[in-house]
Amino acid sequence: MNEFELIARIVPGLPVNDQVVRGAGDDCALLDLGLKENLVLFKTDAVVEGVHFTAETTARKVGRKALARVLSDVAAAAGTPVSCLVTLGLTKKFDPDYVLEFYEGLNELAREYYVSVSGGETTRTTGPFFVSVALIGTVPRRRMITRAGAKEGDAIFVSGELGGSIEGRHLDFEPRIKEAQWLAENFSVRCMMDLSDGLAGDLRHILHASKVGAELLSAAIPISRASKLKAKTESSAKPPLLAALSDGEDYELLFTVSSKDAVRVLDGWKKQFPKTKLSCIGKITGQPGLRLRDGAGVRSLPAHGYTHFEKS
Amino acid sequence: MNEFELIARIVPGLPVNDQVVRGAGDDCALLDLGLKENLVLFKTDAVVEGVHFTAETTARKVGRKALARVLSDVAAAAGTPVSCLVTLGLTKKFDPDYVLEFYEGLNELAREYYVSVSGGETTRTTGPFFVSVALIGTVPRRRMITRAGAKEGDAIFVSGELGGSIEGRHLDFEPRIKEAQWLAENFSVRCMMDLSDGLAGDLRHILHASKVGAELLSAAIPISRASKLKAKTESSAKPPLLAALSDGEDYELLFTVSSKDAVRVLDGWKKQFPKTKLSCIGKITGQPGLRLRDGAGVRSLPAHGYTHFEKS
Repeated sequence: MNEFELIARIVPGLPVNDQVVRGAGDDCALLDLGLKENLVLFKTDAVVEGVHFTAETTARKVGRKALARVLSDVAAAAGTPVSCLVTLGLTKKFDPDYVLEFYEGLNELAREYYVSVSGGETTRTTGPFFVSVALIGTVPRRRMITRAGAKEGDAIFVSGELGGSIEGRHLDFEPRIKEAQWLAENFSVRCMMDLSDGLAGDLRHILHASKVGAELLSAAIPISRASKLKAKTESSAKPPLLAALSDGEDYELLFTVSSKDAVRVLDGWKKQFPKTKLSCIGKITGQPGLRLRDGAGVRSLPAHGYTHFEKS
Repeated sequence: MNEFELIARIVPGLPVNDQVVRGAGDDCALLDLGLKENLVLFKTDAVVEGVHFTAETTARKVGRKALARVLSDVAAAAGTPVSCLVTLGLTKKFDPDYVLEFYEGLNELAREYYVSVSGGETTRTTGPFFVSVALIGTVPRRRMITRAGAKEGDAIFVSGELGGSIEGRHLDFEPRIKEAQWLAENFSVRCMMDLSDGLAGDLRHILHASKVGAELLSAAIPISRASKLKAKTESSAKPPLLAALSDGEDYELLFTVSSKDAVRVLDGWKKQFPKTKLSCIGKITGQPGLRLRDGAGVRSLPAHGYTHFEKS
């Protein structure tokens, strides 16, 4: 049983109550606590030394990344982050200076996004250093976005460039909070998520939740310079397109809008965020499954993507 | 630098914003999200194999404990738990059945308290199994209780019996949610917390936050049967009173009320919760510090209590 199979077994039995608008299975949980205009977003995310960063990563970058990951999930819901709690798993021989520097990186990003760090705890572990960040945010009820709204004919968009994040971007990416809020304010965004497990794998979550399929245009998929460079210099590296489809930790926005809005979205984005690429990479289809179109025709993309427990 | 010294260095620099009513340093963070009558409680708590439970502890009990600990913190704020997220750190060779059984224990307790389990995540670790539970709750604005309200002359109360939790109670304690809500609804509770690091150490947090001192009556401190039994049967065991003062993981309520309310609190509690002991164990003093009165007179209690990083 892999991670996804296990989660599929667990999720149907999880207790719900009247406050749950959207529970397990989306980027953030959505709760109705009785606020007139807003729903509450709730999200946690953990990073572990040796998995999400190495012993050589500076503590400042680890702190930044630990918070940036949950902010990226809030972005996926077009929400506003409010407050976080930080849990640190430290060994008995922990270095206080490392922890202080970790907080410098985390606090700096928190201030940038007006997020309070309202506590948390340290706990002891005999294993690698780990961090879990829990975050509360808000999102206007009227513009709640989940993974489940994609419709046949929708245009599929992705921000930024994909693949090769492991070369450095995973430590200093900017969560797409502003971009997502702008999209949600100005367009009818049908569904949105942030890319964490790779485009092909993550898009499948949208297709599954929305009960649709998709056809991607191979030539339209934005490939990062890091992926291209790696493919050139390392003989064992993935071909760049495969890296863009399957590498994890892109932290870019993946969303769909009605095809009639597609050009307006592209034009508006270019004016609003001239430094960040936005690509229309394909369309939602009534036919289930994920397909890739290139010069040679259309072929089915087998289920892959980054599975935490399959890579070591 | 130990855990507490490190936290004291970190806390003053943590970012705050307009939503923070009470940040780091209390059982729960308190946020004002704009609800008319309620504040939002926010808390996380982690447990690690080899620290908070052993490889022999059943998964069901681990799941129950992981949630019960945060519920105990919500009780300390006299709040109502609403929703939680669960983060699991699993090794590559994780046993799916263990995880499923873990959720059985956690879900059962969640249902008992009408708490939704709204998602979370699994992450990989090379170290011991860990769990972090994040929880959102609510508390009426008018009865917000923190650690900072103790006043000279207040009567100090503690629920249950203390010490020896490691003998089993730490795995099946009942969070004092109902008791705390009843107290807050019917009395002017000056300050409250849940006992996690031992009575003497935890009471010091109240004294520090409230800028007061305390005198405890040695004979009034409720000592658990587990502590007494251990002292009888194990020559190396702590004397029972010391166990009651310094053992961790009691998960009982520690609170103060004005001395004029003390008898009403005791009488009311006895009617409401006949199976759970409530003890008046001393009084708040203007003179700083923590003192213990017994047959031989009054002596100062040196700072001790359970420090996570000092015990192995």
